[in-house]
Parts: sequence; C-alpha cells; structure tokens
Amino acid sequence: MVEDCIFCKIIGGVVPCTKIFENEDVLAFLDISPWSEGHSLLIPKQHFSRLEDCSGPSLAAVAEQLPNVVKAITRAVGAEGCNVLNNNGRCAGQLVDHVHFHIIPRRQGDGVIRHAPQGQYSQGRIEQIADQIRQHLK
Amino acid sequence: MVEDCIFCKIIGGVVPCTKIFENEDVLAFLDISPWSEGHSLLIPKQHFSRLEDCSGPSLAAVAEQLPNVVKAITRAVGAEGCNVLNNNGRCAGQLVDHVHFHIIPRRQGDGVIRHAPQGQYSQGRIEQIADQIRQHLK
Repeated sequence: MVEDCIFCKIIGGVVPCTKIFENEDVLAFLDISPWSEGHSLLIPKQHFSRLEDCSGPSLAAVAEQLPNVVKAITRAVGAEGCNVLNNNGRCAGQLVDHVHFHIIPRRQGDGVIRHAPQGQYSQGRIEQIADQIRQHLK
Repeated sequence: MVEDCIFCKIIGGVVPCTKIFENEDVLAFLDISPWSEGHSLLIPKQHFSRLEDCSGPSLAAVAEQLPNVVKAITRAVGAEGCNVLNNNGRCAGQLVDHVHFHIIPRRQGDGVIRHAPQGQYSQGRIEQIADQIRQHLK
C-alpha cells in the first residue's frame, strides 16, 4: 500500500467506492466520472505505478477476471460491446499512478473513443522497428 | 484454429506478419496500419472471438507478457508511454474476431486516442447500475 495513492486508499477502505467485484488480488468499481454509463475500473490490489512495473502473476490475476467482469458490465447496461483500456503514462491519459484497466460500455456510433487515422510504414521501416523492439525483448 | 480467421492464419504461418514476440500461448506482431509507429498487437494463440468468451488462463497468459512487451515497444520507439486497448465488438472498433490487444506508443499531445467528456451520475444512479452489474456477476 502506497500512502498517497487514491486507489490504495480505496482498496484499504479508507476512501469509499461503488464496488462491483473483489477477490484476494483484484478490485473492480464504477468510475465516478464515466465516459459512458457503467464505465468501471479493474485494478490489481498490489500497487504498481506503471504497466511495465507489474509482476506477471498480478497482471494475470486481473486478466483472469476480465471475461466475467466485462460480460456482467456489458449486459447490465445493455451495451453492444466495450473497450478495455489501460493508459500508461501521463501522455497516454494516465491520471492515477496505480495500474488500472478502464472497462467502457459501447454502442454503435456513440463516439466514446476515437483514434488517429491509420498510418503506413515506408519501405523497410516496419522491419527496422521490429528489430529495435526485438533487441529490447532479449 | 478457425479457418476464415486472419489471425489464426498468422499464428499458423499461412499469412506472414512482422513478429516481435512468441511463446506457446501468445503472439505479438506489428500492426501494418499503425496509429503510431510501433503499434503492435498481442494475441492469445487460442481462438476466442470476444473477450467474454476467453478462458481465464488464456487471457492470463497474455497478461503475463504485457509488462515485457509494453516496455520493449515503448523503449524501442522512444515513446513516453502507451495505451493498451481491446476493442470488443464492432461498435467498439473490433475489426478482427480474434481477441487482440493493441499496444499503442504515445507522446505528449499526439492526439492518437481521444475520448468523450467525463459524465456524472444523477443522484442514486451509480448504485442502481452497480446493483445491476452485481446481479450479473452472481
């Protein structure tokens, strides 16, 4: 538990939340400033600031609950689908430095999440990028 | 393996990809139409159309690799952060019916992903929604 972390405080029961699911390793609760009705957060109880700091097993514990939680949220609000989104770093929209996955119910044409146009790699560039990534994976 | 699934064909080696990581359970490769340079897809090898169809363990296997793959991609392209995004259903932007996680390198102010304004629940509404979700989680 990290003292100045709002999500650690929620996990510890010091700050209230609207809980929808909890087990030993993870907690899910409704986002109080939703992008769409039912927008929830699924988080590991262990504190990690960024995705790359997470232990494999703690992230696996989150993932194991994703199918059930996603199904329940989507059905409960009568949505057609959803997005699962992790924002990793301020530039990516991360506001709380405790790893969390947004689950965002979606409906056709709602425009809740939009992305930049798809680009194209120039000749040979995709292989260059892949080589650089593979170097970092060694 | 599902015969008419492009990602199953990639996993089977019938269709080429620019692979960055592979183990027994998961595959990661560069998206050929990237939202930003280094945009990659991490997928379970077992075919599931939608997130709610996934087995817990197969999704856990994906999650276990996320920290390493995210770190390698972000560093390789010199990004400041990234988003991990699953689009679940056509309305949410899912184009290929084989569960996949987008890993999208981000830089401050790049506008690669944008979302709707944050809403607010009217009095009592958040608890109503939470009750409905909890019913579906039973």
